Amino acid sequence: MKLDGRQRVIIEKVQPEIDSGRFAIKRVIGQAVVVEADAFTDSHDALACVLRYRHESEKNWHEVPMLPLGNDRWHASFPLTELGQYVYTITAWIDHFFSWQQEFVRRNDAQDIALALRGGAKLVEAAARATGENQLQLQQFARELRSVKAEASAVLASSKTLTSLMKQYSDRSLASDYPNLLSVWSEPVKAQYSTWYEFFPRSCVSDDMKHGSFAECEKRLPYIAAMGFDVVYLPPIHPIGLTKRKGANNTLVATESDVGSPWAIGTAEGGHKSIHPQLGTLDDFQHLVMKARELGIDIALDIAFQCSPDHPYVREHPEWFCHRADGSIQYAENPPKKYEDIVPFNFETDNWHELWQELLDVFLFWIKQGITLFRVDNPHTKPFPFWEWLIGEVKRGHPETIFLAEAFTRPKITYRLAKLGFSQSYTYFTWRNTKRELETYFTEFTRTEIREYFRPNLWPNTPDILSEYLQFGGRPAFMLRLVLAATLGANYGIYGPAYELMEATPRDAGGEEYLNSEKYQVRQWELDRADSLKDFIARVNRIRRENPALQQDHRLQFFEVDNDNLLCYAKTTADKLDTILVVANLDPHHTQSGWVTLPLNALGLDALNVYQMQDMLTSARFLWNGPRNYVEINPQVAPAHIFKLRRRVHTEHDFDYFL
Amino acid sequence: MKLDGRQRVIIEKVQPEIDSGRFAIKRVIGQAVVVEADAFTDSHDALACVLRYRHESEKNWHEVPMLPLGNDRWHASFPLTELGQYVYTITAWIDHFFSWQQEFVRRNDAQDIALALRGGAKLVEAAARATGENQLQLQQFARELRSVKAEASAVLASSKTLTSLMKQYSDRSLASDYPNLLSVWSEPVKAQYSTWYEFFPRSCVSDDMKHGSFAECEKRLPYIAAMGFDVVYLPPIHPIGLTKRKGANNTLVATESDVGSPWAIGTAEGGHKSIHPQLGTLDDFQHLVMKARELGIDIALDIAFQCSPDHPYVREHPEWFCHRADGSIQYAENPPKKYEDIVPFNFETDNWHELWQELLDVFLFWIKQGITLFRVDNPHTKPFPFWEWLIGEVKRGHPETIFLAEAFTRPKITYRLAKLGFSQSYTYFTWRNTKRELETYFTEFTRTEIREYFRPNLWPNTPDILSEYLQFGGRPAFMLRLVLAATLGANYGIYGPAYELMEATPRDAGGEEYLNSEKYQVRQWELDRADSLKDFIARVNRIRRENPALQQDHRLQFFEVDNDNLLCYAKTTADKLDTILVVANLDPHHTQSGWVTLPLNALGLDALNVYQMQDMLTSARFLWNGPRNYVEINPQVAPAHIFKLRRRVHTEHDFDYFL
Repeated sequence: MKLDGRQRVIIEKVQPEIDSGRFAIKRVIGQAVVVEADAFTDSHDALACVLRYRHESEKNWHEVPMLPLGNDRWHASFPLTELGQYVYTITAWIDHFFSWQQEFVRRNDAQDIALALRGGAKLVEAAARATGENQLQLQQFARELRSVKAEASAVLASSKTLTSLMKQYSDRSLASDYPNLLSVWSEPVKAQYSTWYEFFPRSCVSDDMKHGSFAECEKRLPYIAAMGFDVVYLPPIHPIGLTKRKGANNTLVATESDVGSPWAIGTAEGGHKSIHPQLGTLDDFQHLVMKARELGIDIALDIAFQCSPDHPYVREHPEWFCHRADGSIQYAENPPKKYEDIVPFNFETDNWHELWQELLDVFLFWIKQGITLFRVDNPHTKPFPFWEWLIGEVKRGHPETIFLAEAFTRPKITYRLAKLGFSQSYTYFTWRNTKRELETYFTEFTRTEIREYFRPNLWPNTPDILSEYLQFGGRPAFMLRLVLAATLGANYGIYGPAYELMEATPRDAGGEEYLNSEKYQVRQWELDRADSLKDFIARVNRIRRENPALQQDHRLQFFEVDNDNLLCYAKTTADKLDTILVVANLDPHHTQSGWVTLPLNALGLDALNVYQMQDMLTSARFLWNGPRNYVEINPQVAPAHIFKLRRRVHTEHDFDYFL
Repeated sequence: MKLDGRQRVIIEKVQPEIDSGRFAIKRVIGQAVVVEADAFTDSHDALACVLRYRHESEKNWHEVPMLPLGNDRWHASFPLTELGQYVYTITAWIDHFFSWQQEFVRRNDAQDIALALRGGAKLVEAAARATGENQLQLQQFARELRSVKAEASAVLASSKTLTSLMKQYSDRSLASDYPNLLSVWSEPVKAQYSTWYEFFPRSCVSDDMKHGSFAECEKRLPYIAAMGFDVVYLPPIHPIGLTKRKGANNTLVATESDVGSPWAIGTAEGGHKSIHPQLGTLDDFQHLVMKARELGIDIALDIAFQCSPDHPYVREHPEWFCHRADGSIQYAENPPKKYEDIVPFNFETDNWHELWQELLDVFLFWIKQGITLFRVDNPHTKPFPFWEWLIGEVKRGHPETIFLAEAFTRPKITYRLAKLGFSQSYTYFTWRNTKRELETYFTEFTRTEIREYFRPNLWPNTPDILSEYLQFGGRPAFMLRLVLAATLGANYGIYGPAYELMEATPRDAGGEEYLNSEKYQVRQWELDRADSLKDFIARVNRIRRENPALQQDHRLQFFEVDNDNLLCYAKTTADKLDTILVVANLDPHHTQSGWVTLPLNALGLDALNVYQMQDMLTSARFLWNGPRNYVEINPQVAPAHIFKLRRRVHTEHDFDYFL
């Protein structure tokens, strides 16, 4: 019997808690972490319960008293004021003095009261012995309890000063500590709310240029900033391999003029820590990073841990790769398909320590250049323990770092990567088109435990994926998928200028690859085309910026509409002051109409007063009444309403009736 | 880095698992434990996954291969052939040979095939090195892989013998072990399915007797057995205290003739290991236990850890009790109420080790007398760590023991007691009367994780509780609550003869205590009264005995009826061969009717064929058709149907069309 059998308090069902504390939950700096737990004891004794927490850099614990919610549930919260990891846990004990007080006020037998006062005095004397500071005051209370007259005893027993002193010196010798140490990542705000724009630097070409450069990219930045993006994500910027280089449209044989895929990393000139010479120098890159920051934009790099056969690693560290039976290096394959321009690492090498260390160094190198956001290519083809270790190592020294997992893979794998540390994750949003698909999928990760560690980053397109919906839906489809991404997800991104210019031609019918994909060639884009969606995108991103409800994913809720082509959902802030309600027409071809049913109570509305719905896209205002209201959406005009809910203010003195 | 970074397989979300293995799940001997888990790795390698288990008495692990269910979920099961605790966990690893096989059959390039055969041969050679037994055979396979012609290679690579050998000698050097060791209690079948009858031995009186005895109890046993009960539970049988003894109807002053409450345990003659002299001797008790067993009945004892002020413990171990400021012993109280005939233990005593040991001895004493079932009185007023230790200690030597927790307390406490080891638990069933209440409550512990450790034992009445529903509902109410208890719960019990004789008069209007309660006085019952429910009870218990669907709680499901006074639910065996469907009229006063909607697919029915519903209470048979069928129940006749579902057998050669 190691524990003291008199530790009578049970603490369980702590939330949030992932796998008994094996993994940290995720929050961002400035937020409060709200913790709940069941705590109870046998019999009728009263409990004291505290939430304890500390930043990983601190030695001492802070304490917050937990308050009862009823049904033996307790809650408290603590603030995240620093980046990095915090740990938290719970301690609870029986507060014998508080139990004594609760019983005392119910006593009505004179002899019992007299005896109980002596019992109470003993408890106070014990607390007095335990402390130096308030000893005298407690001793005085004990004396008073022994001498007080029955008629004044209830007041004395409930004295605020006495209560507060006895709380302070409560006997914790038989306290129960919750056995699990839980942790939370305090990340930068952009981990939770960010707006990404991906483009190919080499396509930043004007006039007759054949290959863009970082210098040209700088000129593109104001255009991107004007649309309201705050992260610019660049595909790999490293030297591109020559051996087995792919030609335009993924052909197997490249011509002299073919620029190759940026994901075939490494030549004799360098690998993951080098810059493709045609893009510029490291200085040029640093200048781009600085210029972007002036516009409120962070540059995110793509880290793809794979090599071209020309990568220096292949020569210097053959032991990091698999070799075929003839001694040749093993290229990537999924028989019968071969990807001969790409060589994967062998993570089962005996030299895995050295390999891990070198790959960590790649991140540290770019962090030194001022990069804090990384989009990680195919993390699901590298071992999970590797990522957990790497992200931990990076964040220990650089808690400002944000990792986005590009894991288009099976659901369990996606969630595990998020659990082990990726700040954000690609999702299946790209292929979720119907009302049922969208509701089911988003409910899964916003209303379950998954939301504690998984942050979706929604992409309506990527250089790899031109979805069927975009291919066939025309302008309304591009507008709709942007609104959905931007309002369903606090984090979203587009691959441009293909997106704002509504590029919709696939390489092969039935496929999802772009024709003349920038993955294999330089493309020049006509950014000022009259039909560009850039102003629409800017408007949507401004709505996001102005409405904190859209800057988080925990409070997303779907509502009923009696038409399966109409999707309705709301996001709201914790204080309910900001509520954004979206009604979207999922049919890009026809006008759809229907009746929306809202849960008035949950939205802080009542059935008697009208409320105002202001469409933030058009500025039009509608007066709604009661739970059911009519909506009609013509996708050719705008495929969705983004309503701001304005409740009626109960005064006639204000100019504006709705808040 | 303690773990090898090349352990690439992740195992998580194992079910069943309670609090990361902190607590055991519960099953009964003869059952299979079905285990599921997520297991996956990075990339596309193939997995091997095994469930490992052993009985606590065994040193070596048994292994069962786990099979994929899709979506990275795996399952397997193992049988419980002994009583006691089993542990189980999961191991998984990458099966490189199986990965090689999967890729090999998809290859179509001649040079690739040749190289791949050499690669495969290497894997087989490595396995041959690892083993003695089948070394020669594996070496031969390796040679064949090196020499086989391309056109025969696919057959060789997929050879069954080779596959099976390579499975047997699969390289587990980088296997991942699930970190939690999980456990399961294998308990006697009666832990899951039992039918309890509580009565006061002292009321086994005939003619002019003033106090019953064990000898008289023996005569009562055939009557109880005929009703189909297999557990007889006796309130405490120990000497009853004299100090502050309560009189009839809980009056504060007892007369000479008052027999006192059996829960005021202990006199100078003895305490928890002694027998009340008026009931008989220890020999008489053992004879009763033996006689009961001959009728298939186990005697359950009531263990109430509290004392009368006269208990020998009070004199011999004053340190086990609380004392008031004047030195007097602290009786039970809930100010302003006092229970001066009862003295509780002080579990915060410095001598808690000795106290725990003595209380354990009480159980061991009665186990030595042949008792295997214990109903524990008010376990929620003793510390949780005490029960966890005590039940563990008892079951280590006596895994046949069953503990029933009489914890009428708050829900979290009830569930914790079940989690820490009680085999069965009292519930709030007694006060759940409406359709919504019953559906919600039973769904909570049959469709959630709670069912893994919590087994309800349903009591429509107890000596303490004569519910309002029984007070005012007349005969239909008694019949209905019995049917509900017996079919909603695999474990249920009644307090008789008060129940079968429909005793319905409360001591105080608005209260739930019986008038002239047997807790304080001897009652003589007219067992042969013409209106007794004994034959009805016998019929219901026979239905339970004949239908395995009713002998478990995991597969309970509620169905829709368009009348809130009608409750409909089914229980079914895992193989779906036995399905019992109950439709109950919750209104004891009026005939109610409505349409029942059944999910045909889930019940193994189709919409085209009629099916037969045989009422096991009346033997009446109804032909039902499709999902919606009409039901009408007159509570004066019988307040419920207990249907056995008979599916149509698709042959005309049998006499009976329905199975």
